[in-house]
Amino acid sequence: MPPPAADPDFEARTRASFARQAAMATLGITLERVAPGEVELALPHRPDLTQQHGFLHAGVVSTALDSACGYAAFTLMPADAAVLTIEFKVNLLAPARGPVLRVLGQVVKAGRTISVVDARAWRRAPGTGEDQLVATMTATVMTVLGRGLAG
Amino acid sequence: MPPPAADPDFEARTRASFARQAAMATLGITLERVAPGEVELALPHRPDLTQQHGFLHAGVVSTALDSACGYAAFTLMPADAAVLTIEFKVNLLAPARGPVLRVLGQVVKAGRTISVVDARAWRRAPGTGEDQLVATMTATVMTVLGRGLAG
Amino acid sequence: MPPPAADPDFEARTRASFARQAAMATLGITLERVAPGEVELALPHRPDLTQQHGFLHAGVVSTALDSACGYAAFTLMPADAAVLTIEFKVNLLAPARGPVLRVLGQVVKAGRTISVVDARAWRRAPGTGEDQLVATMTATVMTVLGRGLAG
Amino acid sequence: MPPPAADPDFEARTRASFARQAAMATLGITLERVAPGEVELALPHRPDLTQQHGFLHAGVVSTALDSACGYAAFTLMPADAAVLTIEFKVNLLAPARGPVLRVLGQVVKAGRTISVVDARAWRRAPGTGEDQLVATMTATVMTVLGRGLAG
Repeated sequence: MPPPAADPDFEARTRASFARQAAMATLGITLERVAPGEVELALPHRPDLTQQHGFLHAGVVSTALDSACGYAAFTLMPADAAVLTIEFKVNLLAPARGPVLRVLGQVVKAGRTISVVDARAWRRAPGTGEDQLVATMTATVMTVLGRGLAG
Repeated sequence: MPPPAADPDFEARTRASFARQAAMATLGITLERVAPGEVELALPHRPDLTQQHGFLHAGVVSTALDSACGYAAFTLMPADAAVLTIEFKVNLLAPARGPVLRVLGQVVKAGRTISVVDARAWRRAPGTGEDQLVATMTATVMTVLGRGLAG
Repeated sequence: MPPPAADPDFEARTRASFARQAAMATLGITLERVAPGEVELALPHRPDLTQQHGFLHAGVVSTALDSACGYAAFTLMPADAAVLTIEFKVNLLAPARGPVLRVLGQVVKAGRTISVVDARAWRRAPGTGEDQLVATMTATVMTVLGRGLAG
Repeated sequence: MPPPAADPDFEARTRASFARQAAMATLGITLERVAPGEVELALPHRPDLTQQHGFLHAGVVSTALDSACGYAAFTLMPADAAVLTIEFKVNLLAPARGPVLRVLGQVVKAGRTISVVDARAWRRAPGTGEDQLVATMTATVMTVLGRGLAG
């Protein structure tokens, strides 16, 4: 269980920062849910974001996974902190078909400087009601204070 | 040194498959150079692809890195093969400022089924003439035959 | 939930292969539990396996994590298959203090050729009764048939 | 090219810290060469460090790769710093046969807090005079000051 959010305004702060990520609007990625140490995004399928076989490009899926990891950690950070991703690793488990991917980021370890976050993307297979895991990420993110990067 | 390309038409085949990745056109990523075991892409900065501090989103950089890795391996594959990325790992070394990132993918080990590819993204810092390394990727990709995924 | 084990003798087969990993005995790593898609190992602290600050070397912890991942996948493989690790990624969350690490490997996705497995190492902090997460791994492993590598 | 070592005694300091890693002596890993931003280790094959097919266990190879990465970064750190590995990723390219693996760690980016290091392990195939790449690592390491962990 992650520690409680240090900043009582964590949700508003997280939603405001997410809204400043222009790439999210461009790619159609939306912020669905914000909780301490956890955020959920949605990534609808779009033909103009596919790779050569018609599935969503792994990089586009990774963009959503990365934002999910970063903002899950961001919910637990002080009000004046910025979050920077240091590195991440992605496993691609199934083709990223539509109609929509859900992307959940969850903090594994919240540190003062370094945090580790897992995210997973899955889809509800139409007609089956079953979830299919599409991709997973583990990300290492950094809490940055005092560099004028707040948010 | 990677083995020579098995398919003499590797360049045309690689360019044709890249052209079918709709995400490349959408994100403004272009294929600059194709050689056996190596491809180079360009990713110009665009304000609508940024994260909250105005740098290119790490996921967008990863999209270019992933395509660079996949197509570097693809150049060495048989004519009827498809390439699938199994997993990748990205390190982010410097903010992805503009005006343009160059992205080079190079095969480390070309296997019959599994290949390992490295990619790096760097920028020419304006006014300095010096290259700055922005991000690196190591990707594991799979050669897929006979699943009707050619290209 | 992983699929059921294809081989009814999965536990005996897994224990026999583990017993052939000479490195496990040398490093004092034991196989505590075997279930379909899941194994648990124990790694006691030993001063001759430490790094410069007296904690277990990250590579030694990774050795246990890698075996946990490989054998978790192995439980679900056909009787004549061998398991090969293609790659893994480790995050180190806390110093690997003693007295003993528990290491749990769990299959995330069992594929015909490629499987993805997560593992985590944790310790019971003496006097507290609380578990502390020490390290995590995500591994990609391959099912190999017909290369004379059975086990 | 990495920056010059901040500490003129970097080699003696690196060798002294390596000598305190008890795991190195236990596993027979030796420090062969130290240069600014670069170290080379040797890892001889030993039957008691193998996995079930008689090759060196991937975790043992990773132990050498991790030390190579950590000490390559350590050469560039201030005299009173300690190095901690945050995470690493390993790709296994060929079976770790003997008689000996050479392991080279090289700093990719030396930062004030976070550094990124690559390492590769290879063997000289007997009778051929050719090097074979066995495994690669990318590691993220941290410079730690003032926690009483010097070395």
